[in-house]
Formats: sequence, C-alpha cells, structure tokens
Amino acid sequence: MMRFTTLIKNPADWMTGEGADNAVVLTSRIRLARNLRGEPFPGWAKKEQRRQTLEILRPAVENLPCMKDAFSQELDDLSSVQKQVLVERHLISREHAARGEGSAAVIERRQSIALMLNEEDHLRMQAIRPGMSLRAAYESLAAVDEELEQSLELAFDHDLGYLTTCPTNLGTGLRASSMLHLPALVLSDQIGQVLQAVNKIGLAVRGLYGEGTESLGNLFQISNQSTLGESEETILRRLERVIAQVATHERNARDKLLEDDPEMVSDKIGRAYGVLRHAWIIDSKEALNHLSLLRLGGDLGFLPQETVKSCDALLMDIQPAHLQLHSGRKLTPEERDQIRAEIVRSRLQTLEAPDIRSTRKKNGNDPDPEIL
Amino acid sequence: MMRFTTLIKNPADWMTGEGADNAVVLTSRIRLARNLRGEPFPGWAKKEQRRQTLEILRPAVENLPCMKDAFSQELDDLSSVQKQVLVERHLISREHAARGEGSAAVIERRQSIALMLNEEDHLRMQAIRPGMSLRAAYESLAAVDEELEQSLELAFDHDLGYLTTCPTNLGTGLRASSMLHLPALVLSDQIGQVLQAVNKIGLAVRGLYGEGTESLGNLFQISNQSTLGESEETILRRLERVIAQVATHERNARDKLLEDDPEMVSDKIGRAYGVLRHAWIIDSKEALNHLSLLRLGGDLGFLPQETVKSCDALLMDIQPAHLQLHSGRKLTPEERDQIRAEIVRSRLQTLEAPDIRSTRKKNGNDPDPEIL
Repeated sequence: MMRFTTLIKNPADWMTGEGADNAVVLTSRIRLARNLRGEPFPGWAKKEQRRQTLEILRPAVENLPCMKDAFSQELDDLSSVQKQVLVERHLISREHAARGEGSAAVIERRQSIALMLNEEDHLRMQAIRPGMSLRAAYESLAAVDEELEQSLELAFDHDLGYLTTCPTNLGTGLRASSMLHLPALVLSDQIGQVLQAVNKIGLAVRGLYGEGTESLGNLFQISNQSTLGESEETILRRLERVIAQVATHERNARDKLLEDDPEMVSDKIGRAYGVLRHAWIIDSKEALNHLSLLRLGGDLGFLPQETVKSCDALLMDIQPAHLQLHSGRKLTPEERDQIRAEIVRSRLQTLEAPDIRSTRKKNGNDPDPEIL
Repeated sequence: MMRFTTLIKNPADWMTGEGADNAVVLTSRIRLARNLRGEPFPGWAKKEQRRQTLEILRPAVENLPCMKDAFSQELDDLSSVQKQVLVERHLISREHAARGEGSAAVIERRQSIALMLNEEDHLRMQAIRPGMSLRAAYESLAAVDEELEQSLELAFDHDLGYLTTCPTNLGTGLRASSMLHLPALVLSDQIGQVLQAVNKIGLAVRGLYGEGTESLGNLFQISNQSTLGESEETILRRLERVIAQVATHERNARDKLLEDDPEMVSDKIGRAYGVLRHAWIIDSKEALNHLSLLRLGGDLGFLPQETVKSCDALLMDIQPAHLQLHSGRKLTPEERDQIRAEIVRSRLQTLEAPDIRSTRKKNGNDPDPEIL
C-alpha cells in the first residue's frame, strides 16, 4: 500500500494535466453516494457496527483494479495535518476528516479516483479530471461502481433508486460539478446576474470548498442540486450545457475587458504579479485573489501560457496544511503567511513581467477561423 | 531672461544635490517676509497701487547678482498649469499662484532662491537647500536680504522688527523649515508622540504642502511658529536641535524595525517596489506612499543608495501639473493616473528587486567607528 507522503509528494493528475476549456474550467468531478443493504447508515451506526461495515467495504474497494498499490488508510491513523491536506486536495470532505473510528479513505495513486468509506454514506466515490470533462469522469466512476456492485450488495430501491442517508442524494446519488475560474465576470460586475441565472435552473453555485464557503480567487463550483427523478444522462447533459454557457460568458467578458479597458486589465494583472513576486508576508485570501489574476494574465497572453498551470499548482500548495506538510512542522498563522510568500516568490522567480503588447488582441488579431 | 520651460526642464539643485542627513531630511528652506515702507500691503492695495509696488520691487530684485539670467514673470502671464508646476516645486505658494495682476515670481536659475512679489507681503524670499542645511540656506538668503536693503526702503520698526501683513510673521519675518521623511516612526506608531513633543516646544508640523495639508508619503515639515521676540540665531538653533533629535528618533526606529521585524520591512518595501514596477494606473497618494517605502529601502540597503534620489525626483515629477507639463496637454484625472504609472514604471525599470540580504544589519554590522 502507498504511504501518505508518496501519495502527496506528486501533484494530482488533474492538477497538471490539460483538459478541455482549461482556461475557464479548472476541474470536473463526479461523486456517487452508495450504501450497503441492511447495514445502518454511518451516522446512525454504533461504533461496532461502523467497524463491521468497514470490514465489508474495505477489501472490496482495495480489490478494485484501479486501486492497485493505492493509498488506503483509516482516518484515525492520520494526523490532523495529513487529513487537512487531503481536504485541501479535495480528496476527502471536511466532514470525513472530522470522523473517527471506522472511517477510511482509499485513493488511487494518481489521485483521480478517491473513495470515502463511512462518510455520511457508507461509500462516497469520487472521480476528478482536469478541465471540462464531466463525461469522462463519470464514465471512469461508473466503471468503478459497476465493479463494486459485483462484490457488494447495495441499498437500491426499484422506485427510488440508490438509498442514501440524506434524501437530497437519493436516486442517482450523483453529484457532478466543475470548478470554474470567472475573473472577468467578477471584474465586469456580471457575476451576480450569471450565478442567479444558474441557480434559477436548479443548479447550485458554491465557493472554493463546497457548501457555504465564500468565493475566493474568483473560483466557483457549479453542480447539480437534485439527484432524483432524472437519469444520470439528463443531469450530466444539463450541467454540461450550462457550464459551457457560463464559460462562453466568461470568455466574452475577457475579450470585452481587454477591448474596453486594457489599462485596467494591465493594472490588475501587473499589481498581482508585483505583489506575488515581492511580498514577504501574504495571507491565503490575498494570495488566491492575486493568483486568480495571474492565471487570467496567462490566458490573455500577458504572461506565458504555462502560467495557468503554475497558478493552479500554487493554489493548492499555499494552503495551510500543505504549507505545514512542506515545512514538516506545525506553523503559526504568521509563519504560514511568511512561508506562503516565500514559496510564491520562489515559484514565480523566473516568470517575466506581464506585457500588454503580447496579449491576444494586440498580438494576434487573427481573423476568426469560423468566418473564413 | 530665462523662459519657463528652461527653468523647469532641469530638476532643482536641492532635488539632486546631496545634503547632510539626506536619508531623513529631504530639504531645508528659509523664508523671509519683507514689506516696503509707506506702501499699502498687497491684500489692502488697489490694483494701481499693487502695480506701483511691483515697479519698485521688480528692478531691485532682478538686479540682485544671484538673479543674473533668472526667471522673472508676472503671474498673469503664466498658464494655470505653469503656476501649478511652480507650486509643486515649492517655488511659489498656493496663495501666490491664485493672485492676479501685480504679482510676480523671480526665481534663480538653479531654483535655490525664489522671490514672490506681492504675495501676502510685498516680498517673500525663499532659499532652499538639500538635506539638513538650514544654516547655509539662511546665510544665502540673509545675503540677498542685505543687498535688497541697499536699494529698497523696508518697513522696519526698532521695537517690533520687520513689519508684516500678518502679525504671525512680525519681527524677524523668518520661517525656517525642513522636510523630514519619517516612515519608520509612522510604521512603528511613534509618530504621534514625536510630533506632539515637537508641537509642545512651539514648533509647527505640517504635511507635504504646508499649512493644513494631510501628511502623504510619510513626509513632515517642521518649522518655527513664532517670529517675534527672538533673534534669527535663536530660532535657527532651536529648530536645528529639534530636527536633529527627530532625525535620530527616525534612524533609531529604522534600526529597530530592521532588528525586530525584518519580514515586515521586507514585505512593505517589496510590495511598494512590486506595485510601482508593475501598476498601470496609480493615483498620487498611493504613489507617494509607495515611493516613501522605496526611499526607505534605499537608505536601509534593500535597494541601491541612488534609489533615495530617484524617489525624490519622482515625488516631484508625478504631481498633477508636472504630468501635464510632461504630456504637453491638459489631462483628465484618469489619464494622469495612467501617465503617472507609466513614468514610474519606466524610471524604475532598471532598479533591481529589493534584497533583504544586502541590508545594513545583515551585510555590514560594522563596529561603530566612535567606539574604536
């Protein structure tokens, strides 16, 4: 079995890989909730019953072909920093990190598939992919699901579908979501309107860490709300359509900003670059917001294209638990702000200053290929 | 006679020259108020009388040896931008710029001596020097004063001294002041206490542009309040002593900041550098405050020593009227903020990033020569 440090040493596949529409969509993720028939739900179960469930689940999960040499650990055996690192990588939920005996995490070595055992449900399975790739993520997780159904007897009702602890997950047990980077919609004050429209058609919008968290770094997660009464196909198709529309709005807003107010865009990106390159103390919130603008600069051509991926890696690595793991010790908030600034400075050391002359507009002005 | 553009094309001697204690004291200036005997004060005089006074004053002033090839102009013949440039260079007062017919400015070509004719008093004479040099400034202006007394009959009373429009200038007519850069006292929250002490011993403290102006860029002007009942010598000696004390406090505060919280200092200086190097829109207030920190960085060794003078030149050149003169046209506030950013970026282009490893503390730690 893989050790924690081995798992985390490398960035996840979805952090480094390229995906469709990566300039706007960071990642796509699919989550399926499943439960064992006849066993009490984890929140209801006595400690002994939770252990028993785990003993049924764990071998089945570890025997999955994709879980060869995977990371598999009971949460009780991880330190709080280690658990927090998994949360920051979106590999387990905050709630799961808080659970005690009888809960475990099994994570595929490239971190593309992560299973939580005895979370709110007996089994929460997750697939993550870079860019706009809900379909591919769903297919990989559906394959896992099918294999597990061979060895486990799942709680399934012919009329209701998969039974879950919370009725909001009943039916498909499917939560599909993409993380979108929408700086231009924020800068041009259109974000409220766009998100309201998304809400109206029954999709949920959240900040960086799921339910109830503030939006940081202009990052927004869009996901389906209802899991019942529609097929997986219908849910995915609607979500894909809406995300594509939001991404188009964002791209249009980027072009318009560049056309209408290039100085403002240069100023925002330049200042973000200047502060990230030269600050010695920076808190998480400020860093995320500046990295967001740098990422935008990478997409608009102010900065090299690779900047987009460098920013995504930094978004992950400057988080509190990642910093403590990096330093090998517990850090005070003041120390974290210094080490965060140090990491950002050193990673961006070779990044040349943003240059408005190399933006798409000024440089390219290529005729639209569709018109040709 | 010198043309306006020729006068202003070059920086003033006191902007580029080195003076004693220049790390803390930017400039020292002496002002003497004088009036003609038997002529009504300018604010009291009818237009015709003001012209008459000017006709007496102007030839006397222009004939001064130091005023050979000087700039000499009635204010009515200057545009509002030109007058504002003179105000920004501290060569005439705001009030003088607002005056109309019968008022003039005669300015020595290196901008070290500037005379206002028909300001609040018939004659306001000013000498400006770099660094802590009140004494030298006073001596140069006293020489001018003595020469003028040969050709003009001044209003002087044996008991009261020189008579002036406002009683606050009566007696010596002397206002001596130094412009101090006190960023470390501000950063370490000691500034209020220090300035209060200065006030208590009867000296005045003001912001960058004299009476009633807010402090910007951590710049403070310290001057004498009373002009009556003391000799020029007594006034100067007290002021010199107090300014030396404040400067010592500031230097101690700089050393202490560097010792106690080098990260905070690095952060402030680094961010100021980052923003000035990479902003595309910057207002005057923000620019002044960042330049103040860069200037501090130059003194502390984070940045090359020349940075101090570059910052002083920029302090002058990024002001609204200077920007308009530079651009050759009237600018909207938005355009000013862009051109200001452009000038700052281009002037600092070759300035390398601040480096904490080259600070006095880390690098030198030379034994105090006085102890050897």
